[in-house]
Amino acid sequence: MKKSVIIVAGGSGKRMGADVPKQFLLLRYKPVLMHTIERFFTYNNQINIVLVLPKEQIDTWKNLCAAYHFSVPHQIAEGGAERFNSVKNGLDKILQSGIVAVHDGVRPLVSIDTINRCFNKAEETGAAIPVIPVVDSLRKVDGETSIAVNRADYVCVQTPQCFNIDILKKAYQQGFTMAFTDDASVVEKSGNNVSLVEGNIENIKITTPQDLILAEQLLSQ
Amino acid sequence: MKKSVIIVAGGSGKRMGADVPKQFLLLRYKPVLMHTIERFFTYNNQINIVLVLPKEQIDTWKNLCAAYHFSVPHQIAEGGAERFNSVKNGLDKILQSGIVAVHDGVRPLVSIDTINRCFNKAEETGAAIPVIPVVDSLRKVDGETSIAVNRADYVCVQTPQCFNIDILKKAYQQGFTMAFTDDASVVEKSGNNVSLVEGNIENIKITTPQDLILAEQLLSQ
Repeated sequence: MKKSVIIVAGGSGKRMGADVPKQFLLLRYKPVLMHTIERFFTYNNQINIVLVLPKEQIDTWKNLCAAYHFSVPHQIAEGGAERFNSVKNGLDKILQSGIVAVHDGVRPLVSIDTINRCFNKAEETGAAIPVIPVVDSLRKVDGETSIAVNRADYVCVQTPQCFNIDILKKAYQQGFTMAFTDDASVVEKSGNNVSLVEGNIENIKITTPQDLILAEQLLSQ
Repeated sequence: MKKSVIIVAGGSGKRMGADVPKQFLLLRYKPVLMHTIERFFTYNNQINIVLVLPKEQIDTWKNLCAAYHFSVPHQIAEGGAERFNSVKNGLDKILQSGIVAVHDGVRPLVSIDTINRCFNKAEETGAAIPVIPVVDSLRKVDGETSIAVNRADYVCVQTPQCFNIDILKKAYQQGFTMAFTDDASVVEKSGNNVSLVEGNIENIKITTPQDLILAEQLLSQ
């Protein structure tokens, strides 16, 4: 079955306190985003890679690719106002059928096993996402009150979120709502169930300076 | 108002893949637990500190204190089968009134500001715990099915959890149930509300080798 991946890199770096968008920050001597793209190319060197970037970052990215001799083949799509719009723009670039993964550009530590589990399960059920257990105690907040909930009843969701392309394209025909926190929620809203597979705990989303430090350490092990 | 803290250090280190209990692992040249205790002593050098340790670790701890010339005054209580029993044993050592904090021994990076906020709010309302926003997307799992939930409706709970001592002692008269995931849940079950205050994101619980690496980096900044 044919495979595609939409890598969404829309961040501005504000939360990092950095001038450089977080996907371009250096991790083990090269931009975070190059690590991320290479993981999918390592998984399958025939995969159709679509990178979604804010319009104003596209030239910078091309210059980085030249400077770092980055040669993994990929298409580029322009980002939108919301992540929802960015994924939709990425989907428009995919003309083949099969399975498509949607992955955060700032998750460079996704394991090949995780990618494999997601694609395989999505091929079987139409939709699969990686999850890991919740480590912290959780409370549900409702206005001024809050109540302890059992963390064992919850899971943390990672990416890549994998779908049959027809299912995802149909789901993205819906209008945007704030309830769309990830691709799985978009697909569920359109009437499809989503299967859960095991993620990997190293597959962190790099959004703070601490995350970048941790990623450096994890990569050096 | 008089202040006490029960520091619960019950871990065996199994999740660390280490022979040494995680609270004794070295962080910036000394055991994690010494950092944790020092944070509370820095907050208030008159605070009544009760350390709860598994019986078989008490001699090791005393030897470590001698070896590292650790001189922060503290009492020691024996741990129980469950965290619930350990806290109860710690509470039995506290004869004064006022506010008591219950804190995880493996959270050495709690900020003085967080400790301050918890004690102050507990003095006002009787019960206060530190929380931080949920970063990951969350799903609620129910057997074979799961559903996306809005992470903005949830918070991650940290320690120290602070209570009026009379309220906490009364709450710990209840029988143990598996629903007691932390001290706040014990206090709620006995009919008291719990106030939420802001925690600090560095206040991680050291349970994996990656956590220890991150803590090293955070302390070196």
